[in-house]
Amino acid sequence: MPLFNKAAIVGVGLIGGSIALELKKKRLCREVVGVTRHKETLAQAKRSGIIDRGSLDLDIIRDADLVVLAASVGTILEVAEKLAPLVKKDCIVTDVGSTKQAIVKRLTKMFPGYIGSHPLAGSEKRGVYHARYGMFAGSLCILTPTKETRSGATAKIRKMWHAFGARVVSLPASRHDTILSLVSHLPHAVAFSLISSVPAEFLPFAAGGLKDTTRLAASDATLWVDIFLSNRKNVLSAIGLLQGNLEKIKTAIRKQDRVALAKILKQAKKKRDTLT
Amino acid sequence: MPLFNKAAIVGVGLIGGSIALELKKKRLCREVVGVTRHKETLAQAKRSGIIDRGSLDLDIIRDADLVVLAASVGTILEVAEKLAPLVKKDCIVTDVGSTKQAIVKRLTKMFPGYIGSHPLAGSEKRGVYHARYGMFAGSLCILTPTKETRSGATAKIRKMWHAFGARVVSLPASRHDTILSLVSHLPHAVAFSLISSVPAEFLPFAAGGLKDTTRLAASDATLWVDIFLSNRKNVLSAIGLLQGNLEKIKTAIRKQDRVALAKILKQAKKKRDTLT
Repeated sequence: MPLFNKAAIVGVGLIGGSIALELKKKRLCREVVGVTRHKETLAQAKRSGIIDRGSLDLDIIRDADLVVLAASVGTILEVAEKLAPLVKKDCIVTDVGSTKQAIVKRLTKMFPGYIGSHPLAGSEKRGVYHARYGMFAGSLCILTPTKETRSGATAKIRKMWHAFGARVVSLPASRHDTILSLVSHLPHAVAFSLISSVPAEFLPFAAGGLKDTTRLAASDATLWVDIFLSNRKNVLSAIGLLQGNLEKIKTAIRKQDRVALAKILKQAKKKRDTLT
Repeated sequence: MPLFNKAAIVGVGLIGGSIALELKKKRLCREVVGVTRHKETLAQAKRSGIIDRGSLDLDIIRDADLVVLAASVGTILEVAEKLAPLVKKDCIVTDVGSTKQAIVKRLTKMFPGYIGSHPLAGSEKRGVYHARYGMFAGSLCILTPTKETRSGATAKIRKMWHAFGARVVSLPASRHDTILSLVSHLPHAVAFSLISSVPAEFLPFAAGGLKDTTRLAASDATLWVDIFLSNRKNVLSAIGLLQGNLEKIKTAIRKQDRVALAKILKQAKKKRDTLT
């Protein structure tokens, strides 16, 4: 028996589109409908069979027993306000936002069946054209239940992500935001700053190292403005930590302190070698 | 007709081993001999046919008409001193060091047939086990001739790198070191600092972004101590530039200045999008 009857994806982009594909191909629901603000996205999502039906109008989500808010962090709250009157009381609602504290606080109040999700999958690319089946296989998905979260909602959403091939862990939203500020938001801030530091005329001399280290700077700028601002304090602390570590390397280089510099680099390499 | 008669590779690691393979498989010389300080490396290089003959003793390079110094930046000058009495007057000598000013200055005085090379190839891995045929195909190799460099040496070494499939450009050593401090040394400093900033207990939450951004931190620590110290002033300036750009992002986040933040990220993305 399918987990859901009618699943509604609000925001059919890279992540929303990939979720729709999983729900359909794994027969986790009887029907997948999609809502998007862009005609072209809608046409592409229908053409490629990512959704069964779609609309530019939120009204299509009526009667859904699963709503996935896959809009960007900056628009989730606004979309949620518009959805609230249309969502059934027993509907399970989740989002896939990259920051959780503010979103979880608001959405828990708005939807009785809400639980936050954050699949650590995707890439610097965006849009329904990059959606693909298998996106979540082997990835990690963080759920952010609160005291008010219905256990039924947690259980069903956990089953859904498991069915997609993801490992699932539950964390308080505040813990999620602290961890993500270091493992995701900081690398993005670094990539944007690093590419900004390299004069354009030197780019023809870039080898694989600079390319890998700055790949995240190809991410959507508006999306990252919203993520940085919605996790402001944590991101500021994380950047501060990095600045401190850069300063330590600078000091060792300036003093030509071979021992101190070797110690920093060896400890860093040792830690990086655990990350496979 | 081969470019060289007897080619000697001093330091049969990732780069030296790959050069030996190219010279042999492309029949660019009649014989390739290798010198290394490690018995195990020597055995592996012989076993896998990377070199024709090898020794732990520099004496094997006598009569070579090509010597490639593929030792690490920190040991090149020391090895060169020992080689000087053994190298023929008309022998062509090159090195593959990642920083060039100090090395070019000294080696130009020691070897009449010297010209500096820096192939922008390789990876965070090291050692003869990772040497491979095809390593330089499509990569860029920077030559650093000076006023004293013999045009015959430049021509032959240029031909050699072309034969390996590399594009070749010539730059003054000082210009090389400035450019590399930004496109290579800075990304390494960033990767080491970034991984140092992430608490070990958060690493299980790392997705592809952190992995790519810190890949370079898996590089050999001792090698990078030498590179950072041998290009000290440039590396310090490069890190300073990055710190300034991080500070700009921090300021925009702290002030919640959406317009300023979007401008920074969009310009960064635009530049990164040119790096394919």
